Amino acid sequence: MPELRKDPVIGRWVIISTERAKRPHDFVTKNEEAESSQDDCPFCEGKEDKTPLEITALRDAESSSNGPGWKVRVVPSLAPLLQIEGDMGRRGKGMYDLMNGIGAHEIIIDTPEHIANIANLEEEQIARVFGVYTKRMEDLKGDDRIKYVLIFKNHGIIAGASSIKHSRTQLIAMPVNPRRVKEELIGARRYYEYKKRCIFCDMIQQEIKTNARIIAREGGFIALTPFASRFPFEIMVLPEEHSCDFYQLKNTKGLAKVMRSVLKKLSIGLKNPPYNYIIHTAPFRRMASAGYWKTIDQDYHWHIEIMPRLTKMAGFEWGSGFYINPTSPEAAADYLKGVEI
Amino acid sequence: MPELRKDPVIGRWVIISTERAKRPHDFVTKNEEAESSQDDCPFCEGKEDKTPLEITALRDAESSSNGPGWKVRVVPSLAPLLQIEGDMGRRGKGMYDLMNGIGAHEIIIDTPEHIANIANLEEEQIARVFGVYTKRMEDLKGDDRIKYVLIFKNHGIIAGASSIKHSRTQLIAMPVNPRRVKEELIGARRYYEYKKRCIFCDMIQQEIKTNARIIAREGGFIALTPFASRFPFEIMVLPEEHSCDFYQLKNTKGLAKVMRSVLKKLSIGLKNPPYNYIIHTAPFRRMASAGYWKTIDQDYHWHIEIMPRLTKMAGFEWGSGFYINPTSPEAAADYLKGVEI
Repeated sequence: MPELRKDPVIGRWVIISTERAKRPHDFVTKNEEAESSQDDCPFCEGKEDKTPLEITALRDAESSSNGPGWKVRVVPSLAPLLQIEGDMGRRGKGMYDLMNGIGAHEIIIDTPEHIANIANLEEEQIARVFGVYTKRMEDLKGDDRIKYVLIFKNHGIIAGASSIKHSRTQLIAMPVNPRRVKEELIGARRYYEYKKRCIFCDMIQQEIKTNARIIAREGGFIALTPFASRFPFEIMVLPEEHSCDFYQLKNTKGLAKVMRSVLKKLSIGLKNPPYNYIIHTAPFRRMASAGYWKTIDQDYHWHIEIMPRLTKMAGFEWGSGFYINPTSPEAAADYLKGVEI
Repeated sequence: MPELRKDPVIGRWVIISTERAKRPHDFVTKNEEAESSQDDCPFCEGKEDKTPLEITALRDAESSSNGPGWKVRVVPSLAPLLQIEGDMGRRGKGMYDLMNGIGAHEIIIDTPEHIANIANLEEEQIARVFGVYTKRMEDLKGDDRIKYVLIFKNHGIIAGASSIKHSRTQLIAMPVNPRRVKEELIGARRYYEYKKRCIFCDMIQQEIKTNARIIAREGGFIALTPFASRFPFEIMVLPEEHSCDFYQLKNTKGLAKVMRSVLKKLSIGLKNPPYNYIIHTAPFRRMASAGYWKTIDQDYHWHIEIMPRLTKMAGFEWGSGFYINPTSPEAAADYLKGVEI
């Protein structure tokens, strides 16, 4: 059973993943993984027997589970970071806190075709993928042990992807909130309490007025480089209309439109760089007495963070939380805006 | 003038470093830097004219500034991230906050010889280097604009070092506190207020009792793998006796002893991996009315964080603040403890 451990000073949870344990000698020689060929790809249509049994799939009416005939397919991870069976087992160990690694780790296969970059799928297919994200989140909301569903994509080996070049998304359902989400919630709530307005909505208004960091506005969404970007070409995509929970998204087509534009611009303008994207959404709020949460839902605004991996990250940035960005967000936005797709 | 920008939601400061600006096309082709030969090294003894004028140096009595005859030498960075002249210029820009990039960026040259890894210096020389760290911190404390002095080392290209393989340390003196330091201070103070004990001192006691994560105890210092390590072989080195401020360190020999052991074990056991280390110390506390700070100084405990760069960091870890560590801290400590140096 993987273990969740809490840093006693700053309260950050870490998964100590015994299931994919690496022993010290695994680090001694570091051969890059060989490129795998398409023939070996377990995510292509027709290779359904190479993955664990599917959790769900968008399927043609006449197709059957774990066979061909699907558009988007969700399977458990072969090397799960968290596991769904068992209890939380919250406990102390002297001054330390830990709990069992309860949760889920799923792979969302973005396409039946062997295509590496989600940017190269049709808009309609990307919309289907986002629809599956929302459905998985909503489904996992039914499990009281799950506090947060983290959905993210690794594109390219440097960004943490494996050597299998078939576009897919990872989903980790967690019994704790990620630290960064907590920080955003605290910051946004503080602003809301003071101003009675959503900080993200205010930010969107100011960005539209200034028009110095906007890459695209399409389908009800805005894509921009944040004012205090940590990395070159860091991008934030937000719905222009206030919305707290990603899983309530109906306009998957609008999101597909803007994400495809932005990821294509990145891919063309910076020659297919490795990147990650992560969905930031509010944690599940089940204790909701309707009136209370009606106010509270005003304070957070879901968004997608896109992080191209262009620079080596100096370790002091991890260690200090202090970042140095050699490219101004204004120059980055200006460049991407101009890339023809 | 570089700019310091504050993230409006979570309050993290970022340097937008216009001095070493990268334009978009700089990212398009990514050639690795060529290895430089020793002949080109501007940090070797005898090449003093290849660096800016020295700020200070540990010198032989008969030697003169900016010439040979030194043991440790401090020079301004050629590509400074912050600059010392000017005022803070704190200001708003709509809802955003920013200030001028005031501060200092210095390079501490660890040795006159062309040696890449500080682990390969004599213990006595490493002690001199740490002595210079404390002196630079104490000196910069005299500048009221400086709140924090960040001292860190990048070893190996992957860890952010340049291609010049001559051991040196970076110092960034900042007008704001790094986010991570703030978080540690808040966490440690909360514990102190509740228990009236230092959380780090308690941790040291528990680690000694458990004896499952200790790599070395030498010269008054303890080196261990933290209970909730984020990365394989993450290491923390702490003075066993309570101390809040690194710059008050007198026992540089003891620190040199333990750091040399640990870095040598890393280098031998994991075949010279890239690594970073960072000194975590309390921010300058100048407003001190003696009695007040006497209590307050009990809550923080300086330490050094060593981060070997063994795994690719998945982007979601940056983006979520949620880490997955495939090696248990106990296995890592056990392995390093056994490496003969």
